[in-house]
Amino acid sequence: MLRTEVVRNILSWYEGETPGLKSNLSRLLMHGRLGGTGRMVILPVDQGFEHGPARSFAANPVAYDPHYLYELAIESKVSGYAAPLGLLEQGADTYAGEVPLILKVNSGNSLVSNQDQAITGTVEDAMRLGCVGVGFTIYPGADSSYDMIEELREISHEAKSRGLISVVWSYPRGGKVSKDGETGFDIIAYAAHMAALMGATIIKVKLPTAHVDLDAAKPVYEQNGIATATAADRVRHIMQAAFAGKRLVVFSGGAAKNRQELLDEVQGIRDGGGNGSIIGRNSFQRSKEEAIALLNEVMDIYA
Amino acid sequence: MLRTEVVRNILSWYEGETPGLKSNLSRLLMHGRLGGTGRMVILPVDQGFEHGPARSFAANPVAYDPHYLYELAIESKVSGYAAPLGLLEQGADTYAGEVPLILKVNSGNSLVSNQDQAITGTVEDAMRLGCVGVGFTIYPGADSSYDMIEELREISHEAKSRGLISVVWSYPRGGKVSKDGETGFDIIAYAAHMAALMGATIIKVKLPTAHVDLDAAKPVYEQNGIATATAADRVRHIMQAAFAGKRLVVFSGGAAKNRQELLDEVQGIRDGGGNGSIIGRNSFQRSKEEAIALLNEVMDIYA
Amino acid sequence: MLRTEVVRNILSWYEGETPGLKSNLSRLLMHGRLGGTGRMVILPVDQGFEHGPARSFAANPVAYDPHYLYELAIESKVSGYAAPLGLLEQGADTYAGEVPLILKVNSGNSLVSNQDQAITGTVEDAMRLGCVGVGFTIYPGADSSYDMIEELREISHEAKSRGLISVVWSYPRGGKVSKDGETGFDIIAYAAHMAALMGATIIKVKLPTAHVDLDAAKPVYEQNGIATATAADRVRHIMQAAFAGKRLVVFSGGAAKNRQELLDEVQGIRDGGGNGSIIGRNSFQRSKEEAIALLNEVMDIYA
Amino acid sequence: MLRTEVVRNILSWYEGETPGLKSNLSRLLMHGRLGGTGRMVILPVDQGFEHGPARSFAANPVAYDPHYLYELAIESKVSGYAAPLGLLEQGADTYAGEVPLILKVNSGNSLVSNQDQAITGTVEDAMRLGCVGVGFTIYPGADSSYDMIEELREISHEAKSRGLISVVWSYPRGGKVSKDGETGFDIIAYAAHMAALMGATIIKVKLPTAHVDLDAAKPVYEQNGIATATAADRVRHIMQAAFAGKRLVVFSGGAAKNRQELLDEVQGIRDGGGNGSIIGRNSFQRSKEEAIALLNEVMDIYA
Amino acid sequence: MLRTEVVRNILSWYEGETPGLKSNLSRLLMHGRLGGTGRMVILPVDQGFEHGPARSFAANPVAYDPHYLYELAIESKVSGYAAPLGLLEQGADTYAGEVPLILKVNSGNSLVSNQDQAITGTVEDAMRLGCVGVGFTIYPGADSSYDMIEELREISHEAKSRGLISVVWSYPRGGKVSKDGETGFDIIAYAAHMAALMGATIIKVKLPTAHVDLDAAKPVYEQNGIATATAADRVRHIMQAAFAGKRLVVFSGGAAKNRQELLDEVQGIRDGGGNGSIIGRNSFQRSKEEAIALLNEVMDIYA
Repeated sequence: MLRTEVVRNILSWYEGETPGLKSNLSRLLMHGRLGGTGRMVILPVDQGFEHGPARSFAANPVAYDPHYLYELAIESKVSGYAAPLGLLEQGADTYAGEVPLILKVNSGNSLVSNQDQAITGTVEDAMRLGCVGVGFTIYPGADSSYDMIEELREISHEAKSRGLISVVWSYPRGGKVSKDGETGFDIIAYAAHMAALMGATIIKVKLPTAHVDLDAAKPVYEQNGIATATAADRVRHIMQAAFAGKRLVVFSGGAAKNRQELLDEVQGIRDGGGNGSIIGRNSFQRSKEEAIALLNEVMDIYA
Repeated sequence: MLRTEVVRNILSWYEGETPGLKSNLSRLLMHGRLGGTGRMVILPVDQGFEHGPARSFAANPVAYDPHYLYELAIESKVSGYAAPLGLLEQGADTYAGEVPLILKVNSGNSLVSNQDQAITGTVEDAMRLGCVGVGFTIYPGADSSYDMIEELREISHEAKSRGLISVVWSYPRGGKVSKDGETGFDIIAYAAHMAALMGATIIKVKLPTAHVDLDAAKPVYEQNGIATATAADRVRHIMQAAFAGKRLVVFSGGAAKNRQELLDEVQGIRDGGGNGSIIGRNSFQRSKEEAIALLNEVMDIYA
Repeated sequence: MLRTEVVRNILSWYEGETPGLKSNLSRLLMHGRLGGTGRMVILPVDQGFEHGPARSFAANPVAYDPHYLYELAIESKVSGYAAPLGLLEQGADTYAGEVPLILKVNSGNSLVSNQDQAITGTVEDAMRLGCVGVGFTIYPGADSSYDMIEELREISHEAKSRGLISVVWSYPRGGKVSKDGETGFDIIAYAAHMAALMGATIIKVKLPTAHVDLDAAKPVYEQNGIATATAADRVRHIMQAAFAGKRLVVFSGGAAKNRQELLDEVQGIRDGGGNGSIIGRNSFQRSKEEAIALLNEVMDIYA
Repeated sequence: MLRTEVVRNILSWYEGETPGLKSNLSRLLMHGRLGGTGRMVILPVDQGFEHGPARSFAANPVAYDPHYLYELAIESKVSGYAAPLGLLEQGADTYAGEVPLILKVNSGNSLVSNQDQAITGTVEDAMRLGCVGVGFTIYPGADSSYDMIEELREISHEAKSRGLISVVWSYPRGGKVSKDGETGFDIIAYAAHMAALMGATIIKVKLPTAHVDLDAAKPVYEQNGIATATAADRVRHIMQAAFAGKRLVVFSGGAAKNRQELLDEVQGIRDGGGNGSIIGRNSFQRSKEEAIALLNEVMDIYA
Repeated sequence: MLRTEVVRNILSWYEGETPGLKSNLSRLLMHGRLGGTGRMVILPVDQGFEHGPARSFAANPVAYDPHYLYELAIESKVSGYAAPLGLLEQGADTYAGEVPLILKVNSGNSLVSNQDQAITGTVEDAMRLGCVGVGFTIYPGADSSYDMIEELREISHEAKSRGLISVVWSYPRGGKVSKDGETGFDIIAYAAHMAALMGATIIKVKLPTAHVDLDAAKPVYEQNGIATATAADRVRHIMQAAFAGKRLVVFSGGAAKNRQELLDEVQGIRDGGGNGSIIGRNSFQRSKEEAIALLNEVMDIYA
């Protein structure tokens, strides 16, 4: 398929980047059912680290096998598959070149109390495994956040210099951020903006609520009449915070929910101008057949 | 335009530096409406990091787009434009060579409580983007201040060795510095002096008040009759602390204020021998037309 | 002996690895009494670090001599011998090539209170001594766990790039893990899964009890009816957590116990599909004759 | 001037060093009014860092200009001039080769509470500026002292390998050292001895009082009848602690005092066999004429 | 003198090491009065760091001069001389090749409260000064112990790769070790064993008392009837913990004591199979004549 006008336009936003990076970004944007639309659905599987294997895979035990996850990503025709080192290694050869891969290079786990993540992969690993890019989580607000930002800086710098894209999971928590604030409207906009300022190629945030968290931000939201009523309104503001929509932003679905709730959210993301969804537990915890059906409904909305 | 006598004289103060650095400093001092006068007005846009996107750009939403900020800097004919990585990348190619760029390589944000900043850019990035130099913030007094000073040392050393200038935001806080002391007369002089001792090419401080903060400093100020009455008096002492005026010092405007307050401040800086202003929110939070008009009034005073 | 089908199949799981690493893994899997069966018994001797020399060797004083430990490993025909630097150096030349060696590169000791280990060997040491791989302990849950994970990442990366296998001792403790949880069913599964995600070639965990430790995990175990009744059931779930059995997992025997208890455990590991045992104090604290007899009974079960 | 016998003898003490280092040490010992005598007077200007600009220079405002400080050092014919990066850079070209320079590579400031210093210069800077050596402060006793000692080790190692001398400001404080102990007789001897053990070329300590600070040291001083009565006695013991006088030790003058007090101290240093003085505030806070007169009186005593 | 059978046998224990390291070890074992016997007496002078100069040298003031210490080591015909950087530098050229040198590369001091040491020398320094090896202290049990162990790992690795031996001062303290435990029987055995596991060439421990410190160790000592009655019994067990006597272990004498006490200790070390003594204050705090006489009595026992 020839590159579409939409994708050509998106690539033009990344004017500071090398042709190598742009061609990896293009690989991702031209792949699968949404290829060429400027929208993406990505399958992420890092819940084994975050919540442990049983909470992640017991509902659909075939998913314990890394090959199953590759096949789900390939057969559902999503845009890409993001996972930690071990999962990508176990299939990288068998399925080489069949789906764009993103190596998640840091990971937290729920045995530890502190708000941090450990580096568990490198840019070199990503290249060895044929990935289009690396994924990295930051926790803006957390005590460890400046360290995480500096780690991101280094990894992102190395990735860029080798033509790999960086996908930044920007998940605020801790510091001045309240529990509700973690999905607060102003906080998510701030999180997306910071990721953009740091040079992220693709930004991943949670879908925000209407809650405005920081006292200093409240009057600004009121006085400027920034709309928060619908999911689409809120997504529109997040895109604005991402360089007036000139950075790709995808939204995460969170815990498994019913089909209609998920599709409603996707409709809101689409209407607000978001670039797509990251859908993990809502896909791999269903049977393959159900998961593919649901992912197709999602992609129908974005297409 | 040929280099003026004023600029030639300023370059002579930087006798320890390479011709490469001097030619980048010259590019900055010879650019725009104030080119050749030895004065500068710089547009800084790092408030998205510091205060979040809505507090920074909602008042003038076109400013969410990085291209707008480049155009504001170019059309207003200010001396240079300083911003973090993402903002400079998004426009570096489109506007290549049209305005001197300063990459701000560390950044704080208001989600975190501690007084520190994270490294978010490198000297290599600055070179890749065609910048004349790098900007770095230190917080003299803060618990993290010695670490920040050592980071500055490394970045400044690398910048110098590649002919890039260093602009040091020297913003005291924490430690023995009281809240009022952050803009105290003695403290700002101390902050400027430390930046000079560390080899800064350009020093950026806040415009000081008449408040003297440190007990050990008070008798010295009284006994030596150091004048503090007017803004010009105070600027004159800061310049003295900057190697008897042989280092370039620019002053920051702070939060948006009315036109006359700003112009009065500028008049004081000018009369006291300061080298110019850094004007952020007072420009990009106004409409482009208003901003350009105001910046021109400012530059008229300095010219 | 030609490589067996079983081993050929196991090697196919490690599709992301180099031929160098696969040939070292093959050396281990084809050695000794269990060569070619896909099962392993490994002799580990790091108790001198963990518990001190007298608690480790006073019961069988000939074991103070490092040569004795080499001979025990060779004469009993176990699959490999794992120990810290000093022990391997004292015999590396005398017994060169007679048994696959694993250099344990980090170690804790019981004089210190905190939950951490120190790096006491390097990949370079392992190569110099002719080892097939390196061993590394992580304590998922401990305050130091993210640091340990990052150290593992670096060492494992270096080992892989030189064709050495990595054996990960994944021993949860601290953080949200209760004392009982250290051998809890869900926790051990989590520990094994994390090691797999980090790219471990061989995973070493403790044999789990039926206790489920994390509140968030309990409903998942109940609702999905994951069997915990017998040792074999529990081992089966651990293997599932290890990429549906596509990573090698060996179980540790712990403190010396009587012959029948040990053999019962081994039977459970075997029936649940585990890949073998690590047997330290139960072998070197017995006389050589008794130890060899017991190890042979164990290997008979696995064969 | 040909090298004198005295200097030739001093150089012989540095038998472990390279000819490069010895020739830089010789440059210092052969320069100025005291050239060839084995005594030195050094002008140090790091008070701007330590106490701020006004407390340092308001008493004699021409001293705000770095060129003034160079000229004071040159015209007074002292042995050398020691200062931080910025001060040396601003004059390094104008006065190249006219006075031996020592780059002070770490600095503290009085806005911060903790007992530490930040690295603000490098050996490479010292070479670029044509210095004979580097200066470094340690605070034996302080929480940060082992870190400072390790930094000194690295910087001193790098300096030596490039033929630069190291001057160690050994200023005990914190830990088991009482406030009085900071200039205590036993503590200063200990500080000088540690600097010697670390390989310092020249040791700088404060002139000690008769106070013995450590309980463990008191009986030793009493039983061995170590004389503490006069300044000369005390200097004699410090020299003993500096490898029986085979390391160069200079003493600091401290806060500005009257002429006679200063000259009495100098007489004591001279009589006790000390190698000279470091005189900062007592010189640059006086008018140039007065300062040169006083420095000459000091040098007359040493000559 | 041709290498003796005893030394030839000792070298055979170090089978993992390079010929370079073995030849340096041989230089040490073949030097002086005890050359060829497999026993050693080493002169260590790091008390200036540990206790300050007056407590170390005031009793015999000629010892302030580093040349005196070289001469004491040479004239008494001990096996080697161990000291920090400054002391070895001041004499390295004058006495080049006259006595095997060991550079002590880390040091603590008694002005600081915490249980740690600072790196004060490097392997490169040791080579530059012609040493046979480096010395390093660890404090097993201390909060800093894992850091010290990792530093030892790096230094020891570098030393080995250049053919230098490592001498490990293994001095337990802090953590679970009681004050009495610092010289406790089980603790010293543990300390010696850990040093052996880390690959030390020579282990230095304190002569243990009969006190068993760790609760977990007590039953082991009782049940296995490990003899603790005499110094010889205790040394025998320490040697056992040092790889069944296949690592060289020397014992330290501690504070100056009377002649007979010292000789009794030496007799015990000898009878228990220890490899010798490190004797500092008991030698350099006596007059040279007395010191040489006493050292000869000691060596007579070992010979």
